[in-house]
Amino acid sequence: MPATDIGKRELRMAMIGGGPGALIGETHRRAARLDGRLRLVAGSFSSDPAKSREQGEKLFLDPARAYGSWKEMLRAESAMPADKRIDLVSIVTPNHLHLEQAAASLAAGFHVVLDKPMTLNLAEARRLHAAVEKSGRIFALTHTYTGYSMVKLARDLVKGGRLGKIRKIMAEYPQGWLYRRFEDDPSNKQASWRTDPARSGSGCLGDIGTHAANLTETVSGLRIVEVAAEISTLVGGRRNDDDLNLLVRWENGAKGVVLASQVATGEENDVSIRVYGDQASLEWRHGDSEHLRLRHPDRPMEIWSRGAAYVAAASPAAARNCRLAACHPEGMIEAFANIYANVAEAIVERGSGKPKSAIATDFPDHHDGLRGMLFVDAALASARAGGKWTRLDS
Amino acid sequence: MPATDIGKRELRMAMIGGGPGALIGETHRRAARLDGRLRLVAGSFSSDPAKSREQGEKLFLDPARAYGSWKEMLRAESAMPADKRIDLVSIVTPNHLHLEQAAASLAAGFHVVLDKPMTLNLAEARRLHAAVEKSGRIFALTHTYTGYSMVKLARDLVKGGRLGKIRKIMAEYPQGWLYRRFEDDPSNKQASWRTDPARSGSGCLGDIGTHAANLTETVSGLRIVEVAAEISTLVGGRRNDDDLNLLVRWENGAKGVVLASQVATGEENDVSIRVYGDQASLEWRHGDSEHLRLRHPDRPMEIWSRGAAYVAAASPAAARNCRLAACHPEGMIEAFANIYANVAEAIVERGSGKPKSAIATDFPDHHDGLRGMLFVDAALASARAGGKWTRLDS
Amino acid sequence: MPATDIGKRELRMAMIGGGPGALIGETHRRAARLDGRLRLVAGSFSSDPAKSREQGEKLFLDPARAYGSWKEMLRAESAMPADKRIDLVSIVTPNHLHLEQAAASLAAGFHVVLDKPMTLNLAEARRLHAAVEKSGRIFALTHTYTGYSMVKLARDLVKGGRLGKIRKIMAEYPQGWLYRRFEDDPSNKQASWRTDPARSGSGCLGDIGTHAANLTETVSGLRIVEVAAEISTLVGGRRNDDDLNLLVRWENGAKGVVLASQVATGEENDVSIRVYGDQASLEWRHGDSEHLRLRHPDRPMEIWSRGAAYVAAASPAAARNCRLAACHPEGMIEAFANIYANVAEAIVERGSGKPKSAIATDFPDHHDGLRGMLFVDAALASARAGGKWTRLDS
Amino acid sequence: MPATDIGKRELRMAMIGGGPGALIGETHRRAARLDGRLRLVAGSFSSDPAKSREQGEKLFLDPARAYGSWKEMLRAESAMPADKRIDLVSIVTPNHLHLEQAAASLAAGFHVVLDKPMTLNLAEARRLHAAVEKSGRIFALTHTYTGYSMVKLARDLVKGGRLGKIRKIMAEYPQGWLYRRFEDDPSNKQASWRTDPARSGSGCLGDIGTHAANLTETVSGLRIVEVAAEISTLVGGRRNDDDLNLLVRWENGAKGVVLASQVATGEENDVSIRVYGDQASLEWRHGDSEHLRLRHPDRPMEIWSRGAAYVAAASPAAARNCRLAACHPEGMIEAFANIYANVAEAIVERGSGKPKSAIATDFPDHHDGLRGMLFVDAALASARAGGKWTRLDS
Repeated sequence: MPATDIGKRELRMAMIGGGPGALIGETHRRAARLDGRLRLVAGSFSSDPAKSREQGEKLFLDPARAYGSWKEMLRAESAMPADKRIDLVSIVTPNHLHLEQAAASLAAGFHVVLDKPMTLNLAEARRLHAAVEKSGRIFALTHTYTGYSMVKLARDLVKGGRLGKIRKIMAEYPQGWLYRRFEDDPSNKQASWRTDPARSGSGCLGDIGTHAANLTETVSGLRIVEVAAEISTLVGGRRNDDDLNLLVRWENGAKGVVLASQVATGEENDVSIRVYGDQASLEWRHGDSEHLRLRHPDRPMEIWSRGAAYVAAASPAAARNCRLAACHPEGMIEAFANIYANVAEAIVERGSGKPKSAIATDFPDHHDGLRGMLFVDAALASARAGGKWTRLDS
Repeated sequence: MPATDIGKRELRMAMIGGGPGALIGETHRRAARLDGRLRLVAGSFSSDPAKSREQGEKLFLDPARAYGSWKEMLRAESAMPADKRIDLVSIVTPNHLHLEQAAASLAAGFHVVLDKPMTLNLAEARRLHAAVEKSGRIFALTHTYTGYSMVKLARDLVKGGRLGKIRKIMAEYPQGWLYRRFEDDPSNKQASWRTDPARSGSGCLGDIGTHAANLTETVSGLRIVEVAAEISTLVGGRRNDDDLNLLVRWENGAKGVVLASQVATGEENDVSIRVYGDQASLEWRHGDSEHLRLRHPDRPMEIWSRGAAYVAAASPAAARNCRLAACHPEGMIEAFANIYANVAEAIVERGSGKPKSAIATDFPDHHDGLRGMLFVDAALASARAGGKWTRLDS
Repeated sequence: MPATDIGKRELRMAMIGGGPGALIGETHRRAARLDGRLRLVAGSFSSDPAKSREQGEKLFLDPARAYGSWKEMLRAESAMPADKRIDLVSIVTPNHLHLEQAAASLAAGFHVVLDKPMTLNLAEARRLHAAVEKSGRIFALTHTYTGYSMVKLARDLVKGGRLGKIRKIMAEYPQGWLYRRFEDDPSNKQASWRTDPARSGSGCLGDIGTHAANLTETVSGLRIVEVAAEISTLVGGRRNDDDLNLLVRWENGAKGVVLASQVATGEENDVSIRVYGDQASLEWRHGDSEHLRLRHPDRPMEIWSRGAAYVAAASPAAARNCRLAACHPEGMIEAFANIYANVAEAIVERGSGKPKSAIATDFPDHHDGLRGMLFVDAALASARAGGKWTRLDS
Repeated sequence: MPATDIGKRELRMAMIGGGPGALIGETHRRAARLDGRLRLVAGSFSSDPAKSREQGEKLFLDPARAYGSWKEMLRAESAMPADKRIDLVSIVTPNHLHLEQAAASLAAGFHVVLDKPMTLNLAEARRLHAAVEKSGRIFALTHTYTGYSMVKLARDLVKGGRLGKIRKIMAEYPQGWLYRRFEDDPSNKQASWRTDPARSGSGCLGDIGTHAANLTETVSGLRIVEVAAEISTLVGGRRNDDDLNLLVRWENGAKGVVLASQVATGEENDVSIRVYGDQASLEWRHGDSEHLRLRHPDRPMEIWSRGAAYVAAASPAAARNCRLAACHPEGMIEAFANIYANVAEAIVERGSGKPKSAIATDFPDHHDGLRGMLFVDAALASARAGGKWTRLDS
């Protein structure tokens, strides 16, 4: 099949991770299925080959493509004929495995979707960033919150000058799920690996602090240049950070904060961002993800509603990354699916030699991933230095 | 492949309707794809064979299975071997086509998912109801609002006695999309067929009034027995009703209202239901579909959050019809997908001779469909009689 | 002191009712005090002279002016010199006393503020209406919800044509405080008199149904012409109605509902009104009384905020009936106080021979009171006739 | 009249400041009037004697008691007989006048209510604190947000252990009113004096940062011990700070932030506080001041409603500082009035020799005032030192 035909078939996807009991794997799979452009055809779902096979069976895969290890999978798929082998790999394993698995997948010629954060630490992130650059493959990092239609609207309103000069930014990610030491129960795999520095790197900072930081850079279009950090372990006996409050400065002189916690008892996942310009300000909250609040000094507050015609007029990207009419709610799977759909578009454009469209770059990539780890690194350095203002490396 | 193996493969689905430009077809397809249990393999997407083929191509179907007519499709699929032919048909055409297409699909031995309302009128609904009964096939009607996890919680809280005796019920469906005579523009297909009595039957009443009525019966577990109706065409020159206010009585003596409008300027799709018992009351709104409000006379209002452990404890069905953690929002595609997933489970149980589980009946069926048309019929009769209290036939 | 000096002194007020344990009396007194234009100087607070004296002492009144009966009070105050006697009487007794007390106060030459509803029944309302007309005194009825700044904005937006032609109106008043038969406890005075037809007239209908009806007429500027009523006693053994659902038609052909309940378990006092025009719609809720929601078909929903400059531009009355900046919340005492302040202005204008300003008529009066009882009467007649559409007398 | 009779009369109040065009003076007066225990009888409303007289006339004061200067007022009132002279002075002037006026009022034997912040700077605050201590008079500072009934509930829930050990606290005060350099217009008095260091001391920090800090100490019962501050002037050419982001540590080891801005374009006055314990957490927002949100890890979120019986059970103070039933909204004047009412009670108890009740101390006093200036001083020092963690003096 000639390259130009890639748009006429389902793209073929493999997954690394996402075995029985895993949390995020099935969300990635649902997102990949949603729009019918991608089909999961292979996987190495667990380091235990029996579990990998079991998962493959549940997913109705060809048993021969439910592999016992990810290395075996990359080898076997590479050896398949072009009209059968996978196009991309979705990686949903703990952070300490990201670098090796992603780099190998790219080296084998596959496009990659990787769960965030990019890697265990900054050194690894630099290596993976270089690997992506060298590979020429499509690479996406699932900072999912920027996949929401209304976050794309927020970004485009800022970009279009609607808020004026940006002065202040506030991002928060309050969670409460680690309010007790659940990691003491070995059956709680999530709590266990996420509080283990060897497998997760930093805790709260890497897991959700990077989401909040990425949200500020994506929406404002401004890079974080400096942080002063208070990073805490508020639950006694825990091995990793579970709370953070950061003073932040952006490249244009804007001031603000990035706040996150995994021990904010009773909180769910109400990530939020507020951006204040000298003309207007905006607010988006995950708990009300279908709306964007826009405040002007001299007009009633406006609540923009996903799917509306006036949204499409202000942000073609918001309209594109949207499937239903206003108040027929979309959710997080759709936000994930926006990343997968745009990656699919990018793969097709690449494969068919078309010029890259706005769609085909509308997802977080290795640059975002590297910036996330620069942020983590600077925050940790600041906290170690007693909250000293610390610049992000570039 | 023996019947008992039906759970080990994807179920195969065909669609009637949902061609280029159609609104609801792709939502059904996304819902069917989401959980990976169903695969669209065939379709008759348009009465125009060329358009049907075009849609099949976009959906990456085998060209041979993008049929030129639904009759041809039923014939051809019936003739295929058991390991290839479709298991179910999803019908998403205008109302006047429902009876013939659904009855024929059932007669050909296929399970059916049908978009609401059941049929054009009560007489047709009685015929389709009988056809389902006779066929022994699985039949689901997409009254999607009852597919939401939190609506299932609402239903189960009432059933468990948490509210006490039900005294008052209020359901509303305010829309504004027909606030002007958009049907005058022939390119507006939605406005055109929905305001045409020949294709839609009643207008606002059948389209969204039945949703609100179904919501009250599903959540309260009580049948509507009597209505006094004001049914209006508030936009001059329109050929069908676009607004209704109904006084309603339920079988246990509960009083209340069912209100709906398509001309409530500026409203989106904020369907809601409130149920008041003598112990407590509940409220669910589509605009905040992830939460259920529970009010007691002597305690703070509670906001129950989809995905939480306490929800699972109160309603296994709410937990089952749920994919993500609390405040990782789900939406309408997920609500549709709950219907498709439970239909898939029902098909597998039927096919493998297992006893029917609670899951396999947890979707609206032909009884709901018939009741919807009894409601429409009584409301129209009451309105014709100047608002006289009118009993629903049984 | 010449009449023209009336603006240079505090106005002197007396109260009938509002003794120890009474609910609404102190709210009226606070409202009267708030702006410093009125001073309570006399009262007949209870039918028990000792209790009246006790209350007077608590209120720091001259003991000679804490009267043993309201008749004595009217007599004594009338006999006082002009620079000492009261200007107005505030009446906060149960409904069956309204006619006699108000008529006598007017006849004695005093202005009157009367708690709603106007009277026990329609016949009495006609008599009191005539008495006001004849007296030439200022008369206000505390339909307090129309005293809110944002309700005045709503009214003025409709009046200014912002919504276009009004098509649909929905008003609700859900309360839960009578969800059980609290009137069986004789110490519960509120429950006791309000469920006693001899003292309250109708129950839910007169107490809060009239508020909702008045809100629709005030905001829309349209009179109710016809109702079809379901009026119920949902708590067994109760002697008065406690729930109602009414289909309503307004004079311009608008359709809608007025709904109210005292047995909506767990509800507080979230009165609301929605008005839909052919250009835009608005919504106001008591539970969010500081804001008005405005919806257009093609623009983001707007949330107007009390106290903002753009509110003043759209409605001078909203700005006038407002004391604090936006998001420095005002509440119900302020809404009551708006009535008292505007009554004070009316008294001063009258007393000083000035022409009547817009302020001096900006409160509900005897016309509103009479219309309320016409509404009650028609609703009761309709319910008795099995829900028959019934016209309001004029 | 013997001292024990002080409870049987209205208390007599004088005001310094609050002349024509002033913003906060009339709010204090309304609050003082609301409950009928205090009566404004004297004032020095402006440094311009003519304006002071004019204001006295509008307020229906005895012309002899509308003084030309506050010094004259204190002298003249001190000379009056005990049954005529004022009991307390309410001071609502710019910050640089607070120390002298308050100290002189106390020295003259009067009780004092002073608008916040306490003084221009820490040195002055220490002097005023000492003056209060020496005087033995009642002194209240209007940190009004702690006057809200639901803030008292929040405080009492924390105190009662409902949240467990406090781990994290977040307080914010976002305003947008100074988003442009309105102080360039000399007729804008508010903008003018508040951005002038000579009259206000610090800007945003003293004006609203102290409110947020006071809220955290009052609700949590924990003192702030250390801050790391970013204090900014985000509007070019402004002479004072208009934005701040502070990392904060409380005495028990809790971490968190205090954030405030006067240039958050489009924001009104939505002060908020969130307190996270190891058992539960709470949230209160000024924009929804009638409710308190309580979150537990394993139960639905609860929304507590002012005026409800369950609130009274959990916090007698919340019930006491409350005038209306739930969802009959109260607002900011009521919050101010709670301070005045409790001050009145304290004055009466003091005057009649009664032991001090819980009511008579339930308002912010000179200790709060001093702590506010310690907070300001430490924050300024930290910001000058490039964000270094800086301890509050004690």
